[in-house]
Amino acid sequence: MRDGVDKADKKGEVKGGLLLTPALKRDLAAVESILRRQVGSRCQLINRISGYALRGRGKRIRPLLLLLSARLCGNEDGLRPVRLASVGEALHVAALIHDDIIDDSPLRRGRPSANARWGTGFSVLAGDYLYSRSLQYLIEEEDREVMRAFVGATLEMVEGEMMEQEMAGRWDVSSAEYLEMITHKTASLFSACCRVGAMVSAAPPEWIAALGRFGLDLGVAFQIVDDALDLIAEERTLGKPVGQDLGGGKITFPLIHILSEGSGPDREALRRLLADDRARKEGEGWQREIRGLIVKCGAVDRSCQIARRYVERAKGHLEIFPACQARSTLLELADYTVARDR
Amino acid sequence: MRDGVDKADKKGEVKGGLLLTPALKRDLAAVESILRRQVGSRCQLINRISGYALRGRGKRIRPLLLLLSARLCGNEDGLRPVRLASVGEALHVAALIHDDIIDDSPLRRGRPSANARWGTGFSVLAGDYLYSRSLQYLIEEEDREVMRAFVGATLEMVEGEMMEQEMAGRWDVSSAEYLEMITHKTASLFSACCRVGAMVSAAPPEWIAALGRFGLDLGVAFQIVDDALDLIAEERTLGKPVGQDLGGGKITFPLIHILSEGSGPDREALRRLLADDRARKEGEGWQREIRGLIVKCGAVDRSCQIARRYVERAKGHLEIFPACQARSTLLELADYTVARDR
Repeated sequence: MRDGVDKADKKGEVKGGLLLTPALKRDLAAVESILRRQVGSRCQLINRISGYALRGRGKRIRPLLLLLSARLCGNEDGLRPVRLASVGEALHVAALIHDDIIDDSPLRRGRPSANARWGTGFSVLAGDYLYSRSLQYLIEEEDREVMRAFVGATLEMVEGEMMEQEMAGRWDVSSAEYLEMITHKTASLFSACCRVGAMVSAAPPEWIAALGRFGLDLGVAFQIVDDALDLIAEERTLGKPVGQDLGGGKITFPLIHILSEGSGPDREALRRLLADDRARKEGEGWQREIRGLIVKCGAVDRSCQIARRYVERAKGHLEIFPACQARSTLLELADYTVARDR
Repeated sequence: MRDGVDKADKKGEVKGGLLLTPALKRDLAAVESILRRQVGSRCQLINRISGYALRGRGKRIRPLLLLLSARLCGNEDGLRPVRLASVGEALHVAALIHDDIIDDSPLRRGRPSANARWGTGFSVLAGDYLYSRSLQYLIEEEDREVMRAFVGATLEMVEGEMMEQEMAGRWDVSSAEYLEMITHKTASLFSACCRVGAMVSAAPPEWIAALGRFGLDLGVAFQIVDDALDLIAEERTLGKPVGQDLGGGKITFPLIHILSEGSGPDREALRRLLADDRARKEGEGWQREIRGLIVKCGAVDRSCQIARRYVERAKGHLEIFPACQARSTLLELADYTVARDR
């Protein structure tokens, strides 16, 4: 599943050591307000489902990336970054609604998923509506490059999700395949949000490109941590069921790490468990055993180390920018990505 | 479900008394060729599912409407109408893929639906991809009005489908509600295709508006006939299961007609049958009985009469245009809409 990990209080204020200026808080509140008004269908059920999904206690990392990127490029106060930040989040939420159908996921952001509450049919339509509605907003922005960036990212997200579905049940996925998949699934929209923030701030091409690379590396780190949290977090903190990836036959970085680099006995034990279809069907015990094994041999820590390397590379892309409040906050946001617990 | 009734041979040539000029046949062939190339994902499964859905033996009514509208406005030979006609069809096919998930429909255009072949998850993603891909094409057209028309239509289509889902199981739907629902679900894209054909031909606003109204009335007629065919057609001809709407608890025009205007005994018999949940669950016998009753009291004929009235009104909107080959073909296409058997 795509990141469903949340990190915002009810006011949309990101915690975890992030220092948000009053202006940024105000912009984030404006994003929330647009998200609440955005749906506006004459069909009440569409409003109800999309509204429910949009009001989830999301971290709002994508809007934050867009707003901070705009600020980093000197756009301190603009309506356009706020409007486009809400589009970035709405595209993400539309994808989440469909992902939860695909994964048959009962929980999202600490509440029943739209799918669990309204069923497949209505949720497919609510996701479609929210996506089209976001595009309607984009059309009015009259900026072809911005549209290209967002529509290109949604295509990559669908491709990434499709790759993930195709990999399900395969325990021989390589690191390279996994990284390609999460780059599409998660990092493409992170990158688009960063680039769009720069684009609407009349930034030079090299700044747009640097922010695009920052978003890409950060997105990869974010998803690696997200997948690790699926193995070690508490459901109550995580806001969605723990071990869901594993149960769905999805291989993630820690597992790839042991299977390709782990020491003899652990690797053999893991292979035996993964091949045991009967135990797998029984579910919880099988999952707990695998999760125990993965944590025991340090594979989760190793994944987080790799995520940290991506974060460091992401931060490196910001070196060309002058030091300022927005840059500091983006660097903190990057660190938070690997430090979070949900 | 949205129209899945097909009326084209393998070459994409519409039958049923329509005279297609060689130039129009060439343009339709160009649309087919774009549709075959359009998907082009790096993910093979996306190409396979979308390609499968796009290659179905569709009538290609929407591309035909767009091409003929362009011709009617003096655009005899243009690449843009061909490209946009393929977008109109791709948006329709993307919606069909999702509709079949929602209706859990096993057949589409005489073959297993994408949903029946690849399952819900992959089909949700294939529909999403095809939709986003169509928008990517649209962005390159750089025409805000065209984008507005198509994206507005897709929003209406989703709303119409949602209304239909909400009406399921309700046997007290009024004619007005039903007409509003099919206007959204089907007529909005018919209308958008007609308007876009005029827009890209530098037509005056009153021509664009007249073609928009033509498409709207034609779309309503088309869907009324489509719903009537669900009651009386043969599955082999129809290309999808007969009686599927009824089985899914969907009320259609003939049923509304009897329940609101039918004579005493038939109406009572019908009400009794509809209220009989146990018989309904048994399925086929219940459906056959209802279908027999509906046909017997002439409700299907009555629905087709109403459809014909919409067709006549649609044709009236074309009176402001000078007589020409394109106008004749549009008038024939309108007549065909109510004369078809699948």
